[in-house]
Amino acid sequence: MEKILVSIITIGDELLIGQTVDTNSAWMAQELNHAGFWVQRRIAVGDERQAIIAALEEEGKRSHIVLITGGLGPTADDITKPVLCDYFGGRLVRDEDTYQRIMQMFESRGLPVLQRNVDQALVPDVCTVLRNERGTAPGMWFEKDEKIYVSMPGVPFEMKGLMENEVVPRLQERFETPALLHHTLITTGMGESFVAEKIKDFEAQLPPHIKLAYLPSYGLLKLRLTTVAPDKISAAAELHKEFMKMRGLLTDIVVAEADLPMSVILAEKLKAKGFSVGTAESCTGGTIASQITAIAGSSAYFKGSVVSYANEVKMNVLGVQAATLEQYGAVSEETVREMAAGALKVLGTDCVMAVSGIMGPDGGSAEKPVGTVWIAVGGHNNIHTKKHHFRYDRARNISMTCVAAMNELRKWLEL
Amino acid sequence: MEKILVSIITIGDELLIGQTVDTNSAWMAQELNHAGFWVQRRIAVGDERQAIIAALEEEGKRSHIVLITGGLGPTADDITKPVLCDYFGGRLVRDEDTYQRIMQMFESRGLPVLQRNVDQALVPDVCTVLRNERGTAPGMWFEKDEKIYVSMPGVPFEMKGLMENEVVPRLQERFETPALLHHTLITTGMGESFVAEKIKDFEAQLPPHIKLAYLPSYGLLKLRLTTVAPDKISAAAELHKEFMKMRGLLTDIVVAEADLPMSVILAEKLKAKGFSVGTAESCTGGTIASQITAIAGSSAYFKGSVVSYANEVKMNVLGVQAATLEQYGAVSEETVREMAAGALKVLGTDCVMAVSGIMGPDGGSAEKPVGTVWIAVGGHNNIHTKKHHFRYDRARNISMTCVAAMNELRKWLEL
Repeated sequence: MEKILVSIITIGDELLIGQTVDTNSAWMAQELNHAGFWVQRRIAVGDERQAIIAALEEEGKRSHIVLITGGLGPTADDITKPVLCDYFGGRLVRDEDTYQRIMQMFESRGLPVLQRNVDQALVPDVCTVLRNERGTAPGMWFEKDEKIYVSMPGVPFEMKGLMENEVVPRLQERFETPALLHHTLITTGMGESFVAEKIKDFEAQLPPHIKLAYLPSYGLLKLRLTTVAPDKISAAAELHKEFMKMRGLLTDIVVAEADLPMSVILAEKLKAKGFSVGTAESCTGGTIASQITAIAGSSAYFKGSVVSYANEVKMNVLGVQAATLEQYGAVSEETVREMAAGALKVLGTDCVMAVSGIMGPDGGSAEKPVGTVWIAVGGHNNIHTKKHHFRYDRARNISMTCVAAMNELRKWLEL
Repeated sequence: MEKILVSIITIGDELLIGQTVDTNSAWMAQELNHAGFWVQRRIAVGDERQAIIAALEEEGKRSHIVLITGGLGPTADDITKPVLCDYFGGRLVRDEDTYQRIMQMFESRGLPVLQRNVDQALVPDVCTVLRNERGTAPGMWFEKDEKIYVSMPGVPFEMKGLMENEVVPRLQERFETPALLHHTLITTGMGESFVAEKIKDFEAQLPPHIKLAYLPSYGLLKLRLTTVAPDKISAAAELHKEFMKMRGLLTDIVVAEADLPMSVILAEKLKAKGFSVGTAESCTGGTIASQITAIAGSSAYFKGSVVSYANEVKMNVLGVQAATLEQYGAVSEETVREMAAGALKVLGTDCVMAVSGIMGPDGGSAEKPVGTVWIAVGGHNNIHTKKHHFRYDRARNISMTCVAAMNELRKWLEL
């Protein structure tokens, strides 16, 4: 069974000048993979007629499906719709369903409707209109030379609704796809070269349709097995068998058997033990708490945090001793230990993470250079500490510290 | 003066299956714009020989410069280097400087050196080696048919070092570029259709080389003017003149006169007033604090936060009355007001933000649907409250709440 190939075209000058990070493509690729479609290229072009047409032509030649986002807003810089209309040889006509939705949307918000809003109900008469429940610009489905092209708004929330409710179901109806499966093992504490060396015989014996990829990720290493095969059940069984072989070679360093964020991996452990958690964060400034609470349902195990950026907050809220700060400094084993003990007390949780470090670019010294971090994790009368030294810039040092702290607590929970 | 055109090719299966969001391209585009280079396309392809070669060929035809990241790791799935070597007709030879760096790096970390690490010092003999101070894989500069191709590692920290120290300076030496300038006005409280209507005469009179773009962004609207012109000084003067005309039409809704994150805009206001700040966060779970502390130097005005996810933390740490929670609920004007007052007291700051809301997908009710948020901002004896209702998914509701809270405090500081 042949792979069904997809190209994703994102349109917008903001993507080419770096004003916006393209998160749409990654989300779309995941959804498409789950449905068995193979994304072979992603292209970003500006709001420029010739650039859009060139991308449509080139990607239409190489893929079965071309998904397009962006450039559908009500202002003059958005030109995707007229360009698509010309490219597919249509003319703009009013779509009654879209028109009614727009009128209703503005009415319910108590806003007047401008001509440019009404014009969003104009669609090329050569497309199938896909209803966008979340905004004014509808999705548009075109077909040409047996290829499918779908245009969606660039607003992530609107694009996601269209993908889930319209685009993916319709593509699944149209195409028979092979099984396209990934299985990721997450490991910690061993560099990719050494892991590769350890599993090189395993890698050599993999059947050619199973591919192994190595992805270092914030101090962890992701090992991804990917297969494409006609039958989903036998493909999954074969992939699982190979995965378990690989896992067996790396038992000591396994963190998780699926590609999940560390916050989700930790959440599973907390739920399994029935433990509540909190954080005392200095250098990460609330980022660990933010990552934990990004997960729906986290209120079941997360109670709260004290972000003690200033020493006075460490003392007044967490009860860190002035003498400790004076003698050892804010970035020290003694201080994180007292931060952890204080957080356990004021937050009333079963376990905590506490971090204090120097994220840079300033604040480092010969003794405690930028990247020095002390982490404490544990519960009452049972606190473990660990020192890390990261070598990156501020943003990456913060991310590394978050993953490291959650990983330390994960290990503590497994003791 | 002609535009110097750039294509960016990112290589890696993880980009095509959505395992990784490509943040490299946006960062590179910003750097290139500052230096006067025009990014016209971004392409992501997998770790696959034919796909890489096709991208090199196509982008080499349309751009002066092709920048390539990814696929340079020490494992078998990374194939960029041999493909480049073949494409440019070279053979792999050891680069002595890279070899010495690798040996030193492993020695200093107390790790053995494997053959696959040593092999990272192999480079095509047809490239100029660019020293990567931050990792084992060097940058490689190729020239073919008067086009320039530069390959860099995909690890963001390493790519950034190479761009700043080697790639951009060398490109600037090679090319004379026109001025490429952006100037962004950030507004709040008026939809893009209405803003567009308000400034349509302004938009109509813009000279053809100045482009206006509208970018809605988390409840704000960014209006970006872009110009490309031969002389930097006169281009900047002309752009400034048009920018001030536009600004003059939108005085009431201006948030900032540069494209900065809301956390940075707020930081400037705080510093100007000499005010310290803290947060009391329920539904945002520390995300506001995380965004504030992402800024280097934020310890000058940010003292800390209480993330009071559980009601007991609201009571025990912030001093919210049990009766208030019982009578009005956690998501209420009364509760955020007490959270703000409590945070001012325990954190000892001049001003605070407090938020409590329902981010979804669960927890909503008829009276308080998902997206309901109460925000309190202010200082001692002077707390303002506001209710918001966002209509999105959990992640977007959290982001919207953060921007809204910081925007409310910004307005309070301007009173």
